[in-house]
Amino acid sequence: MPYIHGGDIYRNRVSMDFSVNVNPLGIPQTVKRAVQEAIEDCGRYPDITTEKLLLAVGKMHGVPTEHLLLGNGASEILMAVVHGLLPSKTVIPVPSFYGYEYAAGAANGEIVYYSVKEEDNFCLSKDLYAVLTTDVKLLFLANPGNPTGNLIGKAALKRILSHCQAQGIYVVIDECFIEFCSGDNSVISEIDNFSNLILVRAFTKIFSIPGIRLGYLVCSNQEILRKISRHLPEWNLSCFAHAAGCACALETDYARRTAAFIRAERHLLAEGLAQSGCKVYPSEANFVLCYSQEPLYERLLERGILIRDCRNFRGLCEGFYRIAVKGREENEKLLRVLQEIKS
Amino acid sequence: MPYIHGGDIYRNRVSMDFSVNVNPLGIPQTVKRAVQEAIEDCGRYPDITTEKLLLAVGKMHGVPTEHLLLGNGASEILMAVVHGLLPSKTVIPVPSFYGYEYAAGAANGEIVYYSVKEEDNFCLSKDLYAVLTTDVKLLFLANPGNPTGNLIGKAALKRILSHCQAQGIYVVIDECFIEFCSGDNSVISEIDNFSNLILVRAFTKIFSIPGIRLGYLVCSNQEILRKISRHLPEWNLSCFAHAAGCACALETDYARRTAAFIRAERHLLAEGLAQSGCKVYPSEANFVLCYSQEPLYERLLERGILIRDCRNFRGLCEGFYRIAVKGREENEKLLRVLQEIKS
Repeated sequence: MPYIHGGDIYRNRVSMDFSVNVNPLGIPQTVKRAVQEAIEDCGRYPDITTEKLLLAVGKMHGVPTEHLLLGNGASEILMAVVHGLLPSKTVIPVPSFYGYEYAAGAANGEIVYYSVKEEDNFCLSKDLYAVLTTDVKLLFLANPGNPTGNLIGKAALKRILSHCQAQGIYVVIDECFIEFCSGDNSVISEIDNFSNLILVRAFTKIFSIPGIRLGYLVCSNQEILRKISRHLPEWNLSCFAHAAGCACALETDYARRTAAFIRAERHLLAEGLAQSGCKVYPSEANFVLCYSQEPLYERLLERGILIRDCRNFRGLCEGFYRIAVKGREENEKLLRVLQEIKS
Repeated sequence: MPYIHGGDIYRNRVSMDFSVNVNPLGIPQTVKRAVQEAIEDCGRYPDITTEKLLLAVGKMHGVPTEHLLLGNGASEILMAVVHGLLPSKTVIPVPSFYGYEYAAGAANGEIVYYSVKEEDNFCLSKDLYAVLTTDVKLLFLANPGNPTGNLIGKAALKRILSHCQAQGIYVVIDECFIEFCSGDNSVISEIDNFSNLILVRAFTKIFSIPGIRLGYLVCSNQEILRKISRHLPEWNLSCFAHAAGCACALETDYARRTAAFIRAERHLLAEGLAQSGCKVYPSEANFVLCYSQEPLYERLLERGILIRDCRNFRGLCEGFYRIAVKGREENEKLLRVLQEIKS
């Protein structure tokens, strides 16, 4: 398998990993404790109905458990969506997370890549509507985008959803990074208004538990939910995912605190990157996309710092890098090293 | 979802669970320690290449890592097999594990249920060949069978594999319980001889870690492996599965010790069940199938003992129960309670 994601800390000597976008505040103590206690559950089958976790996530978001599906990470959810809907034609904006392309490839349908433009700061433009024709069955959107970090406003999203609903297009909106953005940006309150809306979220990033694997889907369309859930394996959640998820759902203030932290740190990081001569694209997420004429990846890696080289993102090329927002000390260290490299 | 598996300890008051078939010797200490240490890995993405675990499992079985796929439990593997092969017609012997039917249903193909007969002690008979026609694409076999516990001999299995190879039928052989049986019964050494053989195994039962989720597939047919792996989500294994799996693979003597323990305990359990007036079917596994004219499930549950009521197994009916072999003390307790109930 060609390595196409960030975070390959397993085959590099890395002391600071800016290639992966998890919460720099780390795993909440309550969640860590819940995971420690869950070791005693290894010897039992997890509850196949996932009743307790469904209730916890439902309560957290104020949505009925009937509108939820739980998955072994968002990756499993994305693939189950494709297996359930078997779209004959799928639209994926690029650049975006490789996982959409990987999932879409599990159906034998056509994939149309819609390119957002550098001169638009990689934001969606009205051109998108031109590719959303009636033969399209599925559209993947990330909000905020990855690797760009830009947010789609609620009004624009609702226009896209309405258009797609009229055309018979299902829309996956991936909100895996939305808690890192300041303000209320989620369309979770719209699930009853759009029967074509399939919301994908994860605890992985915001609660810094990528090793545990826990994502979920929110959708009000029961027929679609049935089709998708049919393709999730039985017992897909580990006892650790159950325990961690229940604890995460009670951490109602963690996202707000994280967003405030990220906002301040992202500002400093973006400013420092610009001062180093990088072109920095606007981001509202916990990572920034930048462009550098001088190569950065290898030179940083020589010093134990891993960033995401974006040349293998469809729609990007050599010179683009995605850099995660981490804690103050690490961000400053990165900027110092960059200054040294660039000078 | 209708509840169709054993082990519903979440909605019953259970002090002893005979409905679920994990190793009564419990989780090896080395594995538990590895899981405890893996808590520190929760904040990192697991290695997407699963390199270390592939090497460990490959070494354990003496098979090249190219012949292995790892899954989030055997359940995920079974579903990926169906998604990868999209069989237009699948044969499933009954009674058997519901998971085959669930997985097969993920393709829109036809399912043919081949009934093994009570008078044959639920063993496969030559009739099987009659349903293995050229329009069949996939056959599920469990060795040992579940809920029956009977073993298919190697010679018989090789005849079935040869026949199926000639007919263009892929054969999934589920060996999830094979380590509980005494002797060398696996066809893992045959994978190079049969390009249609898809072996499914799990660490779940033998190492008593159902909460962790870890199964694997062994197959020498690279084309088939590619097709199947395409339907496994990225990062499908948790950091706990990685750590536990690597530790399990080093526990080379655990299966042998377990099989010896099970053999002795199963003998006592089967004898006791027969003395209580149950009809006990021959089993080589860590559970026995029995038939009782008097209802047992509710009466045992009243006393906090859960057994597997098999009435909802396709091909069985009221009166059939599957009872796991547990430790001496628990097995004796069950037999005492049964004597009380039956007298």
